Amino acid sequence: MHTRAPIQALVFDIFGTVVDWHGSIVREGQALAQRLGLPAVDWPAFAEAWRAGYRPAMARVARGELPWTHIDGLHRLILDEILPRFGLQALPDDEREALNRAWHRLAPWPDSVEGLTRLKRRHTIATLSNGNVALLVNMARHAGLPWDCVFSAEMMGRYKPDLEVYRRAAQWLGHAPDQVLMVAAHPSDLRAAQAAGLQAAYIPRPAEHGAGGWMESAAGCHFEWQADSLTDLARQLGA
Amino acid sequence: MHTRAPIQALVFDIFGTVVDWHGSIVREGQALAQRLGLPAVDWPAFAEAWRAGYRPAMARVARGELPWTHIDGLHRLILDEILPRFGLQALPDDEREALNRAWHRLAPWPDSVEGLTRLKRRHTIATLSNGNVALLVNMARHAGLPWDCVFSAEMMGRYKPDLEVYRRAAQWLGHAPDQVLMVAAHPSDLRAAQAAGLQAAYIPRPAEHGAGGWMESAAGCHFEWQADSLTDLARQLGA
Repeated sequence: MHTRAPIQALVFDIFGTVVDWHGSIVREGQALAQRLGLPAVDWPAFAEAWRAGYRPAMARVARGELPWTHIDGLHRLILDEILPRFGLQALPDDEREALNRAWHRLAPWPDSVEGLTRLKRRHTIATLSNGNVALLVNMARHAGLPWDCVFSAEMMGRYKPDLEVYRRAAQWLGHAPDQVLMVAAHPSDLRAAQAAGLQAAYIPRPAEHGAGGWMESAAGCHFEWQADSLTDLARQLGA
Repeated sequence: MHTRAPIQALVFDIFGTVVDWHGSIVREGQALAQRLGLPAVDWPAFAEAWRAGYRPAMARVARGELPWTHIDGLHRLILDEILPRFGLQALPDDEREALNRAWHRLAPWPDSVEGLTRLKRRHTIATLSNGNVALLVNMARHAGLPWDCVFSAEMMGRYKPDLEVYRRAAQWLGHAPDQVLMVAAHPSDLRAAQAAGLQAAYIPRPAEHGAGGWMESAAGCHFEWQADSLTDLARQLGA
């Protein structure tokens, strides 16, 4: 039935697709509050505010308003901006730096490690993330994510959804773009990958923004693959 | 005794340091000769000739005489050049391409997998090689090399010993240069790493060019670390 090219390699979006940033940041915030005896903070709203600053910050880099800044740097800029809104303006610098590193310790979704381990048996698996290299490497070591290699926007000097990021990943892997499958929970990321010639696998993550939270619409999109989890994707690919 | 900065991450030269290119190419050549019924070929000399073309070819790229060409491409250029010298000018294109891929299947030295596995427990380990990404990834999958991430000259658009290659590896890992240890069998590679601010670990590989073969001189060099093998280096680093 399928006329799709055989998949040689898979590249993965990370934040929301492989790891649960929302739940992880909420837990980090709660632990910090308990340790420092902070006043009540709406940590789910804090996590959303931190993440909401991410796309605008990357857009400023893309427009040249900011020099190239990696995600650790952008996360810190956004953190400093939102802390006063949550009554946390007194948080000292070393605590800010430690909290900023929470993004290096994000927890994987329950299916991620098993799914990646199965997919790796027959295919090359790589990150393709706007996260910086150190963040992705530390996360993989912490969460046990068995990447063959780590591709980061930092290596390309430009952020997704710049099509060059997807094209270069396929080129580095030594495959034609349509032999490479981009895996993501976000239709906008997948549409860009398709525009660059890659195949797309949509893994909806309804809990990305917390239970009952917001999801980017996939209306009008056609993706070559769709799966409920990375283990389901492994099953569909025969792994 | 040591005033050296604590090591956070190790980056590795690959050809000769982690894998035995000479022995592997000789075995690939012998297998090819048997399969195709080729006349007698001096495979050790063939391996040396193929490898000897490597530095001059990279130098042509560095001088701008060749546009950026990855190592698979340079290996193929050199292969086509040397085949007539060994009476193999009739080798068809598909066999040349398959032989060129031998560099993706090089065998590790006997201590490499155990040494890297031990070093990875406490440190981030990455390639820092002039080999292209696909070559390094395929080699790791084939040989079981447990890299945290793969850094290649291809990602930087320049070849070692350009100092920017070493500097950028440290930057991507999120560490000061002197917290990163360059591991190599070649003094020239290590001197460049030191010039870029990294620490250096010298692992002599006396059999790199075959038993009793040539070795680059380390006379006059001072390296922070020296070990007989990657397992010995792991021991010295307490891993």
